[in-house]
Amino acid sequence: MIYDLIIIGAGAAGLTAALYAHRYNLKTLIISKDLGGTALEAHSIENFPGYKGISGIELMKQWINHIKSLKIEIQQEDVINVEKQNDIFTITTKDDKKFQSKTVILALGMKRKHLNVEGEDKFLGKGVSYCAACDGPLFKDKTVVVIGGGDTALMDAQFLVNHAKKVYIIHRRDDFRAEPKREEQIKKNKKIEIIYNANVKEIKGKDFVNSIILDNKTELKVDGVFIDVGFIPSVNIIKKLKVKCDEHDYITVNNKQETNIPGLFAAGDITYNSLKQIITAAAEGAIATFSAFKFNIK
Amino acid sequence: MIYDLIIIGAGAAGLTAALYAHRYNLKTLIISKDLGGTALEAHSIENFPGYKGISGIELMKQWINHIKSLKIEIQQEDVINVEKQNDIFTITTKDDKKFQSKTVILALGMKRKHLNVEGEDKFLGKGVSYCAACDGPLFKDKTVVVIGGGDTALMDAQFLVNHAKKVYIIHRRDDFRAEPKREEQIKKNKKIEIIYNANVKEIKGKDFVNSIILDNKTELKVDGVFIDVGFIPSVNIIKKLKVKCDEHDYITVNNKQETNIPGLFAAGDITYNSLKQIITAAAEGAIATFSAFKFNIK
Repeated sequence: MIYDLIIIGAGAAGLTAALYAHRYNLKTLIISKDLGGTALEAHSIENFPGYKGISGIELMKQWINHIKSLKIEIQQEDVINVEKQNDIFTITTKDDKKFQSKTVILALGMKRKHLNVEGEDKFLGKGVSYCAACDGPLFKDKTVVVIGGGDTALMDAQFLVNHAKKVYIIHRRDDFRAEPKREEQIKKNKKIEIIYNANVKEIKGKDFVNSIILDNKTELKVDGVFIDVGFIPSVNIIKKLKVKCDEHDYITVNNKQETNIPGLFAAGDITYNSLKQIITAAAEGAIATFSAFKFNIK
Repeated sequence: MIYDLIIIGAGAAGLTAALYAHRYNLKTLIISKDLGGTALEAHSIENFPGYKGISGIELMKQWINHIKSLKIEIQQEDVINVEKQNDIFTITTKDDKKFQSKTVILALGMKRKHLNVEGEDKFLGKGVSYCAACDGPLFKDKTVVVIGGGDTALMDAQFLVNHAKKVYIIHRRDDFRAEPKREEQIKKNKKIEIIYNANVKEIKGKDFVNSIILDNKTELKVDGVFIDVGFIPSVNIIKKLKVKCDEHDYITVNNKQETNIPGLFAAGDITYNSLKQIITAAAEGAIATFSAFKFNIK
């Protein structure tokens, strides 16, 4: 059994790619460990047209239901390798299942960057988290710190004030890299204290986190540490394929979402694009499928 | 009063551009005669993620309500000219109102192409229509013809069978240029008769349309003629600006939605892009605003 199209990943890009694959009558398989992607971590999305405010979980639930209603085949598996031989791609999962296809769309998104400081690994799940939307409610009336200064960090801080009694933001620069509207809201919020030009050197605790040490030696008493220092693209599985990437490992694509490998397309946050948004990832997914469709009928 | 950003057009691209402009705190004005754009003509959208099937009118109503809830200024005016002097754009409307801005996003979309045959202008609104979703219900139990073979033509035929007793499709080629899923549905429908390799030479009638003449001299008795032979970009208003366009008059943009004029961006169907979809137009609107934001803070 050889599919017309296998989509690896099921976030905004992968799900939209699948939706278009259905419209184009491609024999399609989605392989993804989880459904919904990075959008699931957003507690309140206010910049997707049509929704004044919706959680990422709610929005993605609608998309997933849409895909499931079309009876598109989904394998919830962890892909570990993609190879190409004689114009056919072979995808191997962690459980050593193999799937074959004429075209592939990589829509694996990104993973959270680590701080790489002492205590980070030790206290993971014991006060250290990479997902405010997932773990924030556990810190009711506690003191937490968000590390980072981008849009995700600020959005997470906004979410955490609904639960914690105090939220610190530690940012290594002296200005944020976020939507001005969000920055304005953050600066007005009395439960949030911003510490600029600082780096975390160590996360301390006993069974659970109880403080962080900054590079100026300040010790801040905190119960939770949310690490929001950026993302890295999830490109491990394609190492053998020699897919062209930029210096930050984002896959290089043209405006048809084509990679340097014929029949291999990429969409969403795994590609280089300036705006990492649900709406742009979705559009890239649609375009990637259109290109895969044209490749299939060649 | 000089705006940071004026968005001309309020379809999927313009509305999303406005939504992002709000997030970026830009002093923004939307100028558009109508709200909702070409999407309004789609009677059933099945390829926008999250909606199993929704009319263009319903979907755009949600987007328009979203924008209105943000109190973004909208002028429902017909723009007739855009000029630039000393880094400031001046936009003139039909009523001779003038608005000024540091940046402009052109999101005017496309207009329907005409067939340019005898009877087309004479019977406009008397049996000739360019919008099935608007006028289809007027042809209950009548015989209508759709002229064209693209996705819009086939979608319109699918809509018209809900009202008319018979729908012809006249297509100049011997295969359609539409989503295969739709093509399959069309070919199965017993109320639809397809005539390939034919062109309409004349639309005849008295007070209303009563037949069309094909190039092989066949006369078909019909009550309604829906013309779906494509679109042309709405670029008349920027003639004086010398905006770079391709050979079909679509505006040339890079992956930041920048035109050749600094501070002037374009998004959606008015630009060259292979996939003219709501999701891609919306993404382009978001990217155009991000570029306008960066231009404003330079």
